[in-house]
Amino acid sequence: MAEAKVLSGAGLRGQIAGQTALSTVGKEGAGLTYRGYDVRELAKDCLFEEVAYLLFYGELPTQAQLDAYLSQLQTQRDLPQALKEVLERIPASAHPMDVMRTGCSMLGNLEPEESFAQQLEKANRLMAAFPAIMCYWYRFSHEGVRIECTSDAPDLGSHFLTLLHGKAPSELHRKVMNVSLILYAEHEFNASTFTARVCASTLSDLFSCITGAIGSLRGPLHGGANEAAMEMIEKFATPEEATEGTLAMLARKDKIMGFGHAIYSVSDPRNEVIKGWSKLLAEEVGDTVLFPVSEAIDKVMWEQKKLFPNADFYHASAYNFMGIPTKLFTPIFVCSRVTGWASHVFEQRSNNRIIRPSAEYIGVEPRAVPPLAQR
Amino acid sequence: MAEAKVLSGAGLRGQIAGQTALSTVGKEGAGLTYRGYDVRELAKDCLFEEVAYLLFYGELPTQAQLDAYLSQLQTQRDLPQALKEVLERIPASAHPMDVMRTGCSMLGNLEPEESFAQQLEKANRLMAAFPAIMCYWYRFSHEGVRIECTSDAPDLGSHFLTLLHGKAPSELHRKVMNVSLILYAEHEFNASTFTARVCASTLSDLFSCITGAIGSLRGPLHGGANEAAMEMIEKFATPEEATEGTLAMLARKDKIMGFGHAIYSVSDPRNEVIKGWSKLLAEEVGDTVLFPVSEAIDKVMWEQKKLFPNADFYHASAYNFMGIPTKLFTPIFVCSRVTGWASHVFEQRSNNRIIRPSAEYIGVEPRAVPPLAQR
Repeated sequence: MAEAKVLSGAGLRGQIAGQTALSTVGKEGAGLTYRGYDVRELAKDCLFEEVAYLLFYGELPTQAQLDAYLSQLQTQRDLPQALKEVLERIPASAHPMDVMRTGCSMLGNLEPEESFAQQLEKANRLMAAFPAIMCYWYRFSHEGVRIECTSDAPDLGSHFLTLLHGKAPSELHRKVMNVSLILYAEHEFNASTFTARVCASTLSDLFSCITGAIGSLRGPLHGGANEAAMEMIEKFATPEEATEGTLAMLARKDKIMGFGHAIYSVSDPRNEVIKGWSKLLAEEVGDTVLFPVSEAIDKVMWEQKKLFPNADFYHASAYNFMGIPTKLFTPIFVCSRVTGWASHVFEQRSNNRIIRPSAEYIGVEPRAVPPLAQR
Repeated sequence: MAEAKVLSGAGLRGQIAGQTALSTVGKEGAGLTYRGYDVRELAKDCLFEEVAYLLFYGELPTQAQLDAYLSQLQTQRDLPQALKEVLERIPASAHPMDVMRTGCSMLGNLEPEESFAQQLEKANRLMAAFPAIMCYWYRFSHEGVRIECTSDAPDLGSHFLTLLHGKAPSELHRKVMNVSLILYAEHEFNASTFTARVCASTLSDLFSCITGAIGSLRGPLHGGANEAAMEMIEKFATPEEATEGTLAMLARKDKIMGFGHAIYSVSDPRNEVIKGWSKLLAEEVGDTVLFPVSEAIDKVMWEQKKLFPNADFYHASAYNFMGIPTKLFTPIFVCSRVTGWASHVFEQRSNNRIIRPSAEYIGVEPRAVPPLAQR
């Protein structure tokens, strides 16, 4: 074996592990682009499905293409009976990301990707099915209800809210869900996406890649920051309490979720977008606590630590205003990021070499096996 | 963002992505050691559980430790009713690796790893449960039988054969299964293990890490070579046919599975071990076809291409002689490799930084979003 090269950064930080045409993250310390488009611009007027189409097919759809795509996805929302029966066997106490992982894996048994020629069909199917996987389990396990998995909702964001609440969302909620799904859709070689690419590099099937990615997103260093932010925000009844409490947490060196970013150094471009929508939602519901508390924490973090809120922080209050249970925050991330994950799988497949690094051995020297009786 | 460093090798080949004390692969082109012990020596006299103990706890067990470990594992073999009901909903046509992936993921819902303090308990539980996950599904879907998931078999290898065949294995078969499980237990930073480590680096739970690893092992560039070898070997009725057929395949540049290795350059140390046992099994069953055919293919591959058989090639005939259906070959790999995967998860957790490389952007330049009507 040739002498292996030691990488300078732990966790492959700053090391280029492959190529992508899907996104740029943190160019000039701030931007996020999907196939050249600024995510803030995409979030302004697009439906999430336009962005999914952009990622999957390479270009934004025309009106006719979008109409056809929305119709197609509508027909792919229902779950097979066997999958529903599996979801019914997962207890209410389960981690919702374990449910998403298992639902995705089970669907791979029932509707396998037989060849890579099916990859787009399967990616669309998974994307269309995830809201039902999440909501069917949630409402069965928590409310004892077997919901319909289809709806007349024109887009995935409002379909999700319809399944969750049993009624169509307002125009504002529909808009915010679309914005949110767009903001979370793609983010280069983060750990879950890299998991999907490593899996794809063995030429495994799409369901395996996405199942693995969900497992990685589940980790508290990756997904879940918006849930953790919500739990913190909810502790405070007034902005004054929040200011005091955040200062105390900083003094105790507690970890405060939803601030700073491994790649962005100046600001997270997604924050200004979701913060604006959270403010509008706060006005709609007449909130006088969650949003002011969030802003108070935000202010302390900037003044004390020069840390900016990332995409997750104001997502917490935004989701809460739309009546979404905190435990479903990270599963929504899955509903969105499946587009980025699958696009990376396609990209890996199109120019593949198995991802198989080396390790530096730091263990014991060669030794003889002692017979059992002499140990 | 600091300028990222471009790695020279695609697929991180030859790049050191972390440290391990678990194994060395290919030192001087041949060896494989687990915690300093030559795998050939471990395979001579050890039970698979001794090797699992070595990987998990750092040292080979004493007799008393081994006895206690075997007893403990025996109590962890049964499956929860809800998992059985999930397995019953997976069709016979499913890919058996999808079954393993789903079974592992489902168990994570029912018996989650609540904290890393439980990691060894959960790893042992998964290892003990995998034979039942595989055999319960296989025999229910293929034979319509609901099997007992426990057995009196003292070790995992004979437990698996007992569940599969409904009776205790011979001493020879018991021995060979232990050897096989030892040979497949651990292999440094291969793609499935690296998947498990990327997942672990987000501090996700053990079930997510193993579920992801199974998905990667499923890929035809990784696991599955012994199944592919079996399918080829079975095509030939005589050694002469095999010689001719292999030459013809080489002339057509067909891919021939079970030969050569990405890391080993001289020979695969596991081959000599399993080949010897396959020969003994052939004698036991009075085989005059499979083993001679295998040897004939082996001879052609060496003479024509200077390619040596890897661990997978003679595993094909060995498993076949023990009455194991070809589609279960890769799931057996899971039953063994779960020890290596889990050990790497523990190691990653003990000195963690999230694995988050960068990508080289090769996509389109920044552009403005055209309004839907103008596309």
